[in-house]
Amino acid sequence: MLIIMGLDSPDKDVENVKDKVKSNGCVPHVIPGASKLAIGITGPTNKLNDEDFQLMPSVQEVVRVTKKYKLVSRQMKNEDTVIDFGSAKVGNKELMIIAGPCSVESRDQIFDIAGQLKEMGIKFLRAGAYKPRSSPYSFQGLKEKGIEYLLEVKKELGMKIVTEVLNPGTLGIVSEAADIIQIGARNMQNFTLIEEAGKTGKPILLKRGMSATVEDLLLSAEYILSQNNYNVILCERGIRTFETSTRNTLDLNAIPVIKQNSHLPIIVDPSHGIGIGDKVPNMALAAVASGADGLMIEVHHKPESALSDGYQSLTPKKFKELLNKLSELAPIVNKELKL
Amino acid sequence: MLIIMGLDSPDKDVENVKDKVKSNGCVPHVIPGASKLAIGITGPTNKLNDEDFQLMPSVQEVVRVTKKYKLVSRQMKNEDTVIDFGSAKVGNKELMIIAGPCSVESRDQIFDIAGQLKEMGIKFLRAGAYKPRSSPYSFQGLKEKGIEYLLEVKKELGMKIVTEVLNPGTLGIVSEAADIIQIGARNMQNFTLIEEAGKTGKPILLKRGMSATVEDLLLSAEYILSQNNYNVILCERGIRTFETSTRNTLDLNAIPVIKQNSHLPIIVDPSHGIGIGDKVPNMALAAVASGADGLMIEVHHKPESALSDGYQSLTPKKFKELLNKLSELAPIVNKELKL
Amino acid sequence: MLIIMGLDSPDKDVENVKDKVKSNGCVPHVIPGASKLAIGITGPTNKLNDEDFQLMPSVQEVVRVTKKYKLVSRQMKNEDTVIDFGSAKVGNKELMIIAGPCSVESRDQIFDIAGQLKEMGIKFLRAGAYKPRSSPYSFQGLKEKGIEYLLEVKKELGMKIVTEVLNPGTLGIVSEAADIIQIGARNMQNFTLIEEAGKTGKPILLKRGMSATVEDLLLSAEYILSQNNYNVILCERGIRTFETSTRNTLDLNAIPVIKQNSHLPIIVDPSHGIGIGDKVPNMALAAVASGADGLMIEVHHKPESALSDGYQSLTPKKFKELLNKLSELAPIVNKELKL
Amino acid sequence: MLIIMGLDSPDKDVENVKDKVKSNGCVPHVIPGASKLAIGITGPTNKLNDEDFQLMPSVQEVVRVTKKYKLVSRQMKNEDTVIDFGSAKVGNKELMIIAGPCSVESRDQIFDIAGQLKEMGIKFLRAGAYKPRSSPYSFQGLKEKGIEYLLEVKKELGMKIVTEVLNPGTLGIVSEAADIIQIGARNMQNFTLIEEAGKTGKPILLKRGMSATVEDLLLSAEYILSQNNYNVILCERGIRTFETSTRNTLDLNAIPVIKQNSHLPIIVDPSHGIGIGDKVPNMALAAVASGADGLMIEVHHKPESALSDGYQSLTPKKFKELLNKLSELAPIVNKELKL
Repeated sequence: MLIIMGLDSPDKDVENVKDKVKSNGCVPHVIPGASKLAIGITGPTNKLNDEDFQLMPSVQEVVRVTKKYKLVSRQMKNEDTVIDFGSAKVGNKELMIIAGPCSVESRDQIFDIAGQLKEMGIKFLRAGAYKPRSSPYSFQGLKEKGIEYLLEVKKELGMKIVTEVLNPGTLGIVSEAADIIQIGARNMQNFTLIEEAGKTGKPILLKRGMSATVEDLLLSAEYILSQNNYNVILCERGIRTFETSTRNTLDLNAIPVIKQNSHLPIIVDPSHGIGIGDKVPNMALAAVASGADGLMIEVHHKPESALSDGYQSLTPKKFKELLNKLSELAPIVNKELKL
Repeated sequence: MLIIMGLDSPDKDVENVKDKVKSNGCVPHVIPGASKLAIGITGPTNKLNDEDFQLMPSVQEVVRVTKKYKLVSRQMKNEDTVIDFGSAKVGNKELMIIAGPCSVESRDQIFDIAGQLKEMGIKFLRAGAYKPRSSPYSFQGLKEKGIEYLLEVKKELGMKIVTEVLNPGTLGIVSEAADIIQIGARNMQNFTLIEEAGKTGKPILLKRGMSATVEDLLLSAEYILSQNNYNVILCERGIRTFETSTRNTLDLNAIPVIKQNSHLPIIVDPSHGIGIGDKVPNMALAAVASGADGLMIEVHHKPESALSDGYQSLTPKKFKELLNKLSELAPIVNKELKL
Repeated sequence: MLIIMGLDSPDKDVENVKDKVKSNGCVPHVIPGASKLAIGITGPTNKLNDEDFQLMPSVQEVVRVTKKYKLVSRQMKNEDTVIDFGSAKVGNKELMIIAGPCSVESRDQIFDIAGQLKEMGIKFLRAGAYKPRSSPYSFQGLKEKGIEYLLEVKKELGMKIVTEVLNPGTLGIVSEAADIIQIGARNMQNFTLIEEAGKTGKPILLKRGMSATVEDLLLSAEYILSQNNYNVILCERGIRTFETSTRNTLDLNAIPVIKQNSHLPIIVDPSHGIGIGDKVPNMALAAVASGADGLMIEVHHKPESALSDGYQSLTPKKFKELLNKLSELAPIVNKELKL
Repeated sequence: MLIIMGLDSPDKDVENVKDKVKSNGCVPHVIPGASKLAIGITGPTNKLNDEDFQLMPSVQEVVRVTKKYKLVSRQMKNEDTVIDFGSAKVGNKELMIIAGPCSVESRDQIFDIAGQLKEMGIKFLRAGAYKPRSSPYSFQGLKEKGIEYLLEVKKELGMKIVTEVLNPGTLGIVSEAADIIQIGARNMQNFTLIEEAGKTGKPILLKRGMSATVEDLLLSAEYILSQNNYNVILCERGIRTFETSTRNTLDLNAIPVIKQNSHLPIIVDPSHGIGIGDKVPNMALAAVASGADGLMIEVHHKPESALSDGYQSLTPKKFKELLNKLSELAPIVNKELKL
């Protein structure tokens, strides 16, 4: 349920609405808008009576939200959510580009790649210190050491860091380095982790699970917003289908569907999505053409000797070529590539 | 197996090679190239001895094709197949645009839509006279009457007609009107129909089945090429996955994979692919960005009263807007929209 | 729509109802029942007025059928459809067992296998003379020769023949040998073929397509029943999913769902379903336990040298062991194995 | 890699082998067998030299394990793993039956259901205190209170408790009540949680993820075994496919595939698998017929008013009927229902 009030409503009126909501066992969420003040209500809203609110001072309208997800929905908040990182924004006209290797492999490796990306104007560096791997015998990341290197990169190069957290126990250390905390596909329904990550207040990059529907993804994002953290960036990264010629099936159909149903920014990871390096540029361009707010792309200076996912990484040279095409493409879909 | 010969090989040498192939129970297919003459061989090639051919006059090289599909593969023929329709080509830089309603509904309807499309510069009109429908109680098309109207449109407006054939029995009548014979997704593995359609020598538009892998699609195309008909246009139109927020899951990943593995042109049908009219432009742009050679789009002047698939059709006005964007996008991916 | 009348309704009353249906542009289907006479109505039933029928003599009730499929639904006909083959029945307590090789490979081969099966008490022999194959270069069956051998087997051993038809053109020759005409998974939505096969009046074995939902399967069956042929046996044979450790994913969940929604018998093909010979017995037992009316199983005397699908075939010895287990299992689920 | 030694090998010889393994940076796992002593080796085994071990005293054979998973594979340990709970075993001839409600809803509710199950001879009670739910607004379980009630049930009725853990933080409290710690489908690749749960040494019930292949499931189990906890029970509970007539697609094909490739017991949860209460008995029987070692079934005394998953629960009466059929079926597949 959503209660619409004037932006200039007296504080007292707003407090009265919130109190009435709480006294009925529900939770009010104040959602700032450009022209209206909205109070989203979650909890057992079926016990609430629309008329009781309609008659309260400053209340303009009472709306029932019909989707299972509430706070993430466009019904609750019509304006696009824009997250401001100072040097860059996401969710507005700017095309967000996150790039970097799958994993931090060594101090040299991460400085080498980050340096090249920085020079191209890239502001967000991705690199995993903690890696979830299907097999216990695969490389699991440099862990604390990896975070340490990322902190150094952050300080020396001034890049924003995007890195994954695998469990609540390492949320503290990951948060030190991360400007954006990544929740991987395998953990999209690890609700404890999502909630805990949400509580840090940091922007969260939430990747779609391999068999998650769009609704599942939005419901998982709802877990974070209900922790009062609205800084969520969704990420499409491929779903599991019967097709075996590609690693996953990047589902770009999800982009316009999500843009219609949610105010949250949505970016695309074509590297995991198709999983074949020389076809990543095709899917990157397609993603932006479909309406995505940004891209997350694996770039490695020596893909053939990467400790993980080398097969799907671009070399800095190929990545640069892609950036050139993206800057031409962006304006056609009302975006802009600021480098 | 593939035998490479010089373009200027004496006819006698070529005939000798063909004879040797036939005498071993195999079939030779002469594949014209720009710089080489290639003879593709299908049948029980394991009985053939590479050395026997290598020593023959004018033979430059003997290559074993490792894919299950042969004639459609890039190994057999490296150059892109370009099909020439006089007023337009497909498979080269030109972006092919096929547009029109799902079904011919009446003389007025098809002339109305075709007239508007013609005015926009569209050269290929799609419209079904025979419709395959999951339920026997759904509208099955105007049949003969529909073909009649398409013939009139063809004569009066000079448009190229793309229309579907459902069975060998109506191949004759469908061929009268069709410049391109469409094989629908449900019939992609109706091998009798494919072979018979192939024998007409007309260009065939072969749509990917809902659960067909890329390899399945290429193997079905192989049935047509093995009838000595190389005029095949492949079409991605969405696969079946667990996601229910869209009608199908348009699989754009297939585009770069097919472009790498086959010389045949591949176009995309975003209307069936995502199945939601207002999201078709997003997927159309994405398809071209991913490297597709063209698009097939449902356009209806009154989508809300269409007898089939109205929900996924664009109005002529929305379609015109899309064309404008496409003409901006095309050059970025080395294509050109000629209208 | 369904009109229920007494079994002893005067012919005149029944004719009156049928005439009224026809005069409204709909089609009446008389469905014989044990205690009631039902007239199923297909076509534009939304134009019909329930009250108009309720007042007619002998009419007891007017029921709206809510499923997309009508004639195949339990709403239209509550009693299980039982098809009588003289020596055996399907759809009642008898467990139907169809066995045989994937393809007729030679006169000796089919007589050898059929002879062994006959000795075990098997009444239905499966074997393909026309084979649909993904690749044009795979063995396509012995065709006319295969049908000839099947006719000989039929005459000499008195077995009922189950064999596949691929196109309307060979329906005549296939029908000569076939007691049950098989429509394969790839042709489940080849509606022309289904309708034509239905018109022969012969029992039809309709296999579920690889990406067909249960509803799709029932709608395809509806095409046959609407040709006034009620002798349809459905067959679950595995769907396409992301899992690659088995050839297909045999979907036994479909069995109880279909038994609830349709009166048609449903059997299971575990050989194609799981696609691994030594695991076929597990799935065969599971199929019967889940409520299937029968099984279709590939048996080959020399699986390792079969021209098609040898990997998933059972030897006669392994098949005999399975029959022993099935005869123990059947009574637990109210079935009986008559050999 | 696997080193086979005689059961009577002197301790010194065994220690020598283990030392050599460790000195090469690998990890030795002693796997007890009935007739042989096996030492499984994980880590960078490509650095090891087979011959070096073959020549060591008491070593009989050196085997390379070709699967990605090692400790869970039949290559490493040929004999079925049997877990002994005192009052019952799993992995041997006994059919394991776990039953109970989806969630603990109140003290009365859990005692009521557990009492009825106990009376039927059921030894394992399932009930969730912590519930993972797609939506943050769904009932999340009674949490600590739920564990408290389970402890009471355990003490008073002497039943073994199976309950789910959602995060490492509550592993302590969950372990107090749980005789078997359940890892749910959504957490199958939450590797931190799996490892931590494994370290408790308690038996782990590991449910297959919705889009997990059989290999993925076995690799996740490998995480637990590599913590030196061999007490793992696998559980098939349905995968996500395109079919929408059932909640999930219970994949019984996985049962014989897993029994062949792994020594671990595998049970089936037909309640979540098909998700429709009146069809659960069909799938339960099918599961046992396919070779499963047991079942986990949702039973609720008032399914229509359950706080979660009522639609897929059986009443105690229906469950009792199922048990009767199961006890008839079990001997046919070499199992036994001990109640």
